[in-house]
Amino acid sequence: MSTDTTPTDAEAACFEAGIKFGSLYHQFAGTPVSPDTAPSLAAAMADSIENQPHCREVTVDVRTDELEAALAESTADYTELTGRFLEVEIVVDYEGCEVVTRMEMEDGYPLMRLESVRD
Amino acid sequence: MSTDTTPTDAEAACFEAGIKFGSLYHQFAGTPVSPDTAPSLAAAMADSIENQPHCREVTVDVRTDELEAALAESTADYTELTGRFLEVEIVVDYEGCEVVTRMEMEDGYPLMRLESVRD
Amino acid sequence: MSTDTTPTDAEAACFEAGIKFGSLYHQFAGTPVSPDTAPSLAAAMADSIENQPHCREVTVDVRTDELEAALAESTADYTELTGRFLEVEIVVDYEGCEVVTRMEMEDGYPLMRLESVRD
Amino acid sequence: MSTDTTPTDAEAACFEAGIKFGSLYHQFAGTPVSPDTAPSLAAAMADSIENQPHCREVTVDVRTDELEAALAESTADYTELTGRFLEVEIVVDYEGCEVVTRMEMEDGYPLMRLESVRD
Repeated sequence: MSTDTTPTDAEAACFEAGIKFGSLYHQFAGTPVSPDTAPSLAAAMADSIENQPHCREVTVDVRTDELEAALAESTADYTELTGRFLEVEIVVDYEGCEVVTRMEMEDGYPLMRLESVRD
Repeated sequence: MSTDTTPTDAEAACFEAGIKFGSLYHQFAGTPVSPDTAPSLAAAMADSIENQPHCREVTVDVRTDELEAALAESTADYTELTGRFLEVEIVVDYEGCEVVTRMEMEDGYPLMRLESVRD
Repeated sequence: MSTDTTPTDAEAACFEAGIKFGSLYHQFAGTPVSPDTAPSLAAAMADSIENQPHCREVTVDVRTDELEAALAESTADYTELTGRFLEVEIVVDYEGCEVVTRMEMEDGYPLMRLESVRD
Repeated sequence: MSTDTTPTDAEAACFEAGIKFGSLYHQFAGTPVSPDTAPSLAAAMADSIENQPHCREVTVDVRTDELEAALAESTADYTELTGRFLEVEIVVDYEGCEVVTRMEMEDGYPLMRLESVRD
């Protein structure tokens, strides 16, 4: 066990990456979405979160195949955005440390995970 | 005082218009926004809310003049979306009744109001 | 067809009621919720929306039976708040006009509707 | 420079802590709040986010002194929740690694930062 608890740059970079993911998800979950409006929503999600500090690139894909499958089972022509319909990659650069993170579905939950941390 | 409390179509149309305004505001307030990303956010807000039932048209203008004024007073290059930066018009059509609503600032608060109700 | 398009007090009251419903839903949809935390979330939703103008009373019930049913099908011990888990009643009083509104599920969608309008 | 980019447990713990902060902020920013309703909102924020994986403790204080100062300058009796009114501490435990994080205002922006990382 280390006794020094001061965060490293890599740890701070991972913290920053987590903030972006939590922000993206909880800002936009619940937004009304359909196959026609998915592209403009995906673009706004990426552009908005890229404003946050240390955020190099955000890539958002709203999965229209999953959207169409969900709507085929319903009487509505739109639904609410949730993790099932999203694939997201976020790259953070903090003091020269690059962190790549990704969200994908696992067991029906949107799992956010660290892909790589490069000092 | 009327004893019949069954809503008219015009009243239902106004209720629907209110739902759209509350949805738009509370879904997107807090989104990170800058002059560069205002256009994609405005487009997504309009497209998303137009998915809702009986919603004919949503027009969103993110006021870049106000954004630039707010950022000039700060050390950051983005801020959070709030009513100060928004002008919105929403037109609802419910059973042939058209309602026009608008949001504008008054006394520092985003005031949402009914413009017209046409049976 | 009427040529006067000035809203009545009853119509304005219905618009106000709609704003409260859209606000409540899109502010809180997506919040992590479990049977243990449902009561504090329901209390905060009611208290927060009652701050809005002309809002006399908000009653929120997070349906723990539906929450437990959803969690029984999953490996997680919490889920995201959505209309399936909510029963809401909102009473608005605008210039002496009382509007009662309610949200309940219909065909898998959270349907918000006007119950009564009393001039 | 390291060539191994596999995240450590401490880095994953920091990523998890960031997710909780981004979630808390963007889920609840914009909520109508007044001195009277601040306690129930703070309780719901803490309880809701504690549902998330690896989250040991969330402490939320809605600063009623700042709320009262903001309302004294306005004609309204409530405002929207934003970072100015919040003090938050989140403790994450991931595979035995404890991360303490805190949010406080700096230059008018809610700054989220890592306090300590204990392997």
